[in-house]
Amino acid sequence: MTRGLFITLEGGDGSGKTTQAELLRAWLAAEGRVVVRTREPGGTEVGVEVREIVLHHRGDITPRAEALLYAADRAHHVATVVRPALERGEVVIQDRYIDSSVAYQGVGRVLDADAVRALSDWATEGLAPDLTILLDLEAAAARGRLDEARTRYDRLEAEASEFHDRVREAYLAIADREPARFLVVDASRPVDEIAGRIRARVAGLL
Amino acid sequence: MTRGLFITLEGGDGSGKTTQAELLRAWLAAEGRVVVRTREPGGTEVGVEVREIVLHHRGDITPRAEALLYAADRAHHVATVVRPALERGEVVIQDRYIDSSVAYQGVGRVLDADAVRALSDWATEGLAPDLTILLDLEAAAARGRLDEARTRYDRLEAEASEFHDRVREAYLAIADREPARFLVVDASRPVDEIAGRIRARVAGLL
Repeated sequence: MTRGLFITLEGGDGSGKTTQAELLRAWLAAEGRVVVRTREPGGTEVGVEVREIVLHHRGDITPRAEALLYAADRAHHVATVVRPALERGEVVIQDRYIDSSVAYQGVGRVLDADAVRALSDWATEGLAPDLTILLDLEAAAARGRLDEARTRYDRLEAEASEFHDRVREAYLAIADREPARFLVVDASRPVDEIAGRIRARVAGLL
Repeated sequence: MTRGLFITLEGGDGSGKTTQAELLRAWLAAEGRVVVRTREPGGTEVGVEVREIVLHHRGDITPRAEALLYAADRAHHVATVVRPALERGEVVIQDRYIDSSVAYQGVGRVLDADAVRALSDWATEGLAPDLTILLDLEAAAARGRLDEARTRYDRLEAEASEFHDRVREAYLAIADREPARFLVVDASRPVDEIAGRIRARVAGLL
């Protein structure tokens, strides 16, 4: 159906997704591939507005509303950015996708994980990544990195460490169920070592 | 479960929903009932922001994203406004609810009506109105009223008359399937006559 390659990066805040996405992009570009770097939420103009509501709204957003807003951003993003790029044969490298919703919303919060996944499947008309890279890191280590970088905490980042541990477990459980799609890497390893493992896996898909 | 009364008004733009909602509110207030007047989209602070995205965004929003944004607004609105009011025993009079989504999105657009309804049912945890008043009006008559009132057209209102006719038919089909929930009134009749019919039906529910 699509000729390109759809790669997603998953993992908690502070696990190194942005760094590894950029290293992978640079390597693929050097290999002569056209690469689209994108993210959810906020990968489109509409998505930026949705992201503003979700991350920075002063009042509490109810869990179902939050899940639906993420799904709306995803529907628009997949239809207007990801699918067109894949149809042009390009490589899409994306920060966060359906697995984020399932891990954060379905397990970390109070919603049913299957319902949250069904929502995203409907939103995207079932578009699955060719490869998902899970940057696995203990919550304590992730929080330490964020403190060090003086990153501004948003609403999700401000959740308790216990919440991050549950998200981490949820990610690992998802990866266990779909080993063919996932590359799980220990995000506490040196940046270059992780990048090398990712390149090796992606090279096999080109 | 809830002690209040949940009344929704449906119908195309220009069918008189705002007028009849206000007349009904005034009558119920005179009868000593506590009434909450609300609407979708835009019945909460979060919903106002969602409404801005849906109605006035310059770019095209994909149909699935639009449906999900409406559902997000609905989830938040029901959880924070409608259910609390019903639990306090109040009467909620609401412009547009799930039937709008099914009529506009599911039938008028390209999405499956059952999928759109399922989305809203999930968003609201299945909250159905006690009474839905359908103000039925031919598209041509509705457009004439809007022209007369020099109402600013928003994106939905600017759709073609053919679209309005399909929405009207969709509304009537929904009402046919749930006669116990619906009161269908001819919106071309005089305002006071319509208000009288509505009061008679609501009186039977108090």
